Amino acid sequence: MGKELVSREQDYSQWYNDLIIKGSLADYSAVRGCMVIKPYGYALWENMQGVLDKMFKDTGHQNAYFPLFVPKSLFEAEEKNAEGFAKECAVVTHYRLKADPNNKGKLMVDPEAKLEEELVVRPTSEAIIWNTYKGWIQSYRDLPLLINQWANVVRWEMRTRLFLRTAEFLWQEGHTAHATKEEAIEETRRMLDVYADFAENWMALPVIKGVKSPNERFAGAEDTYCIEALMQDGKALQAGTSHFLGQNFAKAFDVKFSDKNNQLDYVWATSWGVSTRLIGGLVMAHSDDDGLILPPRIAPIQVVIVPIYKGDEQKAQIGSVVAGIVAQLKGMGISVKYDDADHNRPGWKFAEYELKGVPVRIAVGARDLENKVVEVARRDTKEKTTVSLEGIDMYIQNLLIDIQQQMFNKAKAFRDDHITEANSWDEFVQILDTKAGFVSAHWDGTAETEDKIKELAKATIRCIPLDNPQEDGVCILSGNKSVQRVLFARAY
Amino acid sequence: MGKELVSREQDYSQWYNDLIIKGSLADYSAVRGCMVIKPYGYALWENMQGVLDKMFKDTGHQNAYFPLFVPKSLFEAEEKNAEGFAKECAVVTHYRLKADPNNKGKLMVDPEAKLEEELVVRPTSEAIIWNTYKGWIQSYRDLPLLINQWANVVRWEMRTRLFLRTAEFLWQEGHTAHATKEEAIEETRRMLDVYADFAENWMALPVIKGVKSPNERFAGAEDTYCIEALMQDGKALQAGTSHFLGQNFAKAFDVKFSDKNNQLDYVWATSWGVSTRLIGGLVMAHSDDDGLILPPRIAPIQVVIVPIYKGDEQKAQIGSVVAGIVAQLKGMGISVKYDDADHNRPGWKFAEYELKGVPVRIAVGARDLENKVVEVARRDTKEKTTVSLEGIDMYIQNLLIDIQQQMFNKAKAFRDDHITEANSWDEFVQILDTKAGFVSAHWDGTAETEDKIKELAKATIRCIPLDNPQEDGVCILSGNKSVQRVLFARAY
Repeated sequence: MGKELVSREQDYSQWYNDLIIKGSLADYSAVRGCMVIKPYGYALWENMQGVLDKMFKDTGHQNAYFPLFVPKSLFEAEEKNAEGFAKECAVVTHYRLKADPNNKGKLMVDPEAKLEEELVVRPTSEAIIWNTYKGWIQSYRDLPLLINQWANVVRWEMRTRLFLRTAEFLWQEGHTAHATKEEAIEETRRMLDVYADFAENWMALPVIKGVKSPNERFAGAEDTYCIEALMQDGKALQAGTSHFLGQNFAKAFDVKFSDKNNQLDYVWATSWGVSTRLIGGLVMAHSDDDGLILPPRIAPIQVVIVPIYKGDEQKAQIGSVVAGIVAQLKGMGISVKYDDADHNRPGWKFAEYELKGVPVRIAVGARDLENKVVEVARRDTKEKTTVSLEGIDMYIQNLLIDIQQQMFNKAKAFRDDHITEANSWDEFVQILDTKAGFVSAHWDGTAETEDKIKELAKATIRCIPLDNPQEDGVCILSGNKSVQRVLFARAY
Repeated sequence: MGKELVSREQDYSQWYNDLIIKGSLADYSAVRGCMVIKPYGYALWENMQGVLDKMFKDTGHQNAYFPLFVPKSLFEAEEKNAEGFAKECAVVTHYRLKADPNNKGKLMVDPEAKLEEELVVRPTSEAIIWNTYKGWIQSYRDLPLLINQWANVVRWEMRTRLFLRTAEFLWQEGHTAHATKEEAIEETRRMLDVYADFAENWMALPVIKGVKSPNERFAGAEDTYCIEALMQDGKALQAGTSHFLGQNFAKAFDVKFSDKNNQLDYVWATSWGVSTRLIGGLVMAHSDDDGLILPPRIAPIQVVIVPIYKGDEQKAQIGSVVAGIVAQLKGMGISVKYDDADHNRPGWKFAEYELKGVPVRIAVGARDLENKVVEVARRDTKEKTTVSLEGIDMYIQNLLIDIQQQMFNKAKAFRDDHITEANSWDEFVQILDTKAGFVSAHWDGTAETEDKIKELAKATIRCIPLDNPQEDGVCILSGNKSVQRVLFARAY
């Protein structure tokens, strides 16, 4: 069938790439580092968007849309942000092509159509948005301003990988403005909680909430909060970030408000985002050597039904029974596909929907109908059960809930089993090289030591967990005093 | 209040711009020709997207996502398409900025980061999509391929106007592939019908379905079908297009399929799109000198409730009654806002929601409560009625249906009243200069005459209506033989 995957053990990276392509989530494109999101992958993204969008609206946010382009003079206004993204900016310099006089049928950039000021394709939208907020915020009555944008952004990455790191990606970016520092920090934490809720309860992906070390902060932030997840190869993945931006952007774009006492002050800001990268994390955390395993709550197809028949008469008999099952399940809000195509055999279909990670498969044969049963297979454990047609709807509904929970439990057990304490440099390196996962170790709190650890062990501080216990110790590298352990890992 | 608008009669163009800004739909941005879509405008777009997306899915389409950038060599592959869009392309030439050594704190384009091949920011996605389809289509079993994309596109227009013509805009673009010419034409017509259905039944915007003259075709199409609407100033607006692309793109990108007899042939194509331009048409077709008038079926807020009270006690009494009304209406799926903010007076609120085009306003005063009534005002006619609290939910539901219907009827009567026959050149010009609207006139069918009419009268052929009656006549300009009347107009 040409659908077999390399095993995870053999080549994890190849397994991942093959799975994305063969599982019909995405495809390479003709544009360096950019991908095509195929219908099945996009349907997954739509489901994720739908849940997140509701969560954002339930917490008081509204959607809006800001320009794709950022004039260079605005882009450079917040210096740290500009410095952080300058090296990966796609830049529009011209606004016209013309016929190439030396090359019939070909076009060339028209040198006479050079822009006076270059336009940066947004790598993130703080600059263009805060320049706009300047016109929208005058008084405390205009605050808080709670806005989210669903958009595409471009970061010219040198090494790309489907979903996890692409030159163009889709995301949402929240940008909020507040009257006080406390409110802004509260918002930053609230959205971190929303992300963690989404990751754990919808994607079945356990995450650790924490704060980044200064070296790993978003460019222009005072503090970057994050959720960190663990992949099956023991590498960490940053799954979402929420930034407390202080008054940095308000100062760069001169955004002030008058408070109730008519005093002028700069506005406090946050920004937060998750992207199509989450799909990469989802695949890497849950899937197996036979294909994707998608959590029921966001799977594009939750149940697939495959008939097993000989001849049109059997097919029709099965079809009429299945129609009833489909109606029952749809009535419960469950998405079902009945695949009765003649040109593929049942075995081919079983493999295909395993590859695509459909959580539940129901197989219906002629003999089953006589016994008023069907065969139900769950994708996560591959267990098969014979189930009575009577009450099949409730059985499936409960099974989907169980699969969702078991997927989370399994990923959490793996994650918990892969947080290891290291108390010396040798131990630290050994764990990274053998067991991998998060390594909890003492660090002296300096950027120099952090840089050196990254250089020597290829591991970064993923986060300082929230409510981290304080504990005296010595830094695994420098031997200097440390007040807490932090989580290191090799990461995507 | 600083919210007054110039009247339509005084300056229609200024009225429109002011209304977009003051009605909180959009704002100008720092990027030439690009706008910011504000939360209220974006909520309207989300409602429109929701309806259209369902219509697309109900007709068998799936969403996907293709890259923002088109390498120049792909862009130029379909020559007519390339020629048509070359003059308005934003072009990315570099992928990095660096610190400007001569200008502290500023950035410059890094000349060492020049792309080997320039990237065009998509003005439309046929090229990148058909280059992808090449890998997806081998056999008749892969057809039809029915895909839609929601995306931003960029066309470097010299003269821009909020929503109607912006350098960047949001749209959807359908791109389908078929085994036969007939199927592709059928799809083109099906999607035209979907657009007309959406315009008339959701936007309350009557449209004429037709086909474009060769001069006005989409670059690269064999035939362009369109829906044309009429604005209150008598100018026409192209509200959506659906293109039969023949085998042009399949040939340019070498996309062939083997049919049931194993014969290879090029694939047949369509593409179709509507954009945020529709919002401009909506505003221009329905609104008045006091503000927006939004059709209930897509209005972000369908009903606003304003309390009229003195003191906290009255406010609380009214609030408890309103809570019941809000619950009733929400239960019927009606979106309601209760504006009980203390810092704005009722008169200010009335004007504000008139400006924003909320279809129904309910005012509740203390005296009303004694009489168990409320005052209901409809935005379209400004009629006010005293309505009993008993049965208020059904009353509002019916009122929303009636407003939707009346808005359509009014726009249709205006449109029908502005289709005028002209039988000579003088008559033609006189109608355009005085009454405006569509002018139904004989045309000899040549591109030369069409060009000359455009030059002399600033009017274009909007469309040849579907099922146009055939009628012998003479061309209003050339005097040559003509077989049918076509619809001319000055247009946006």
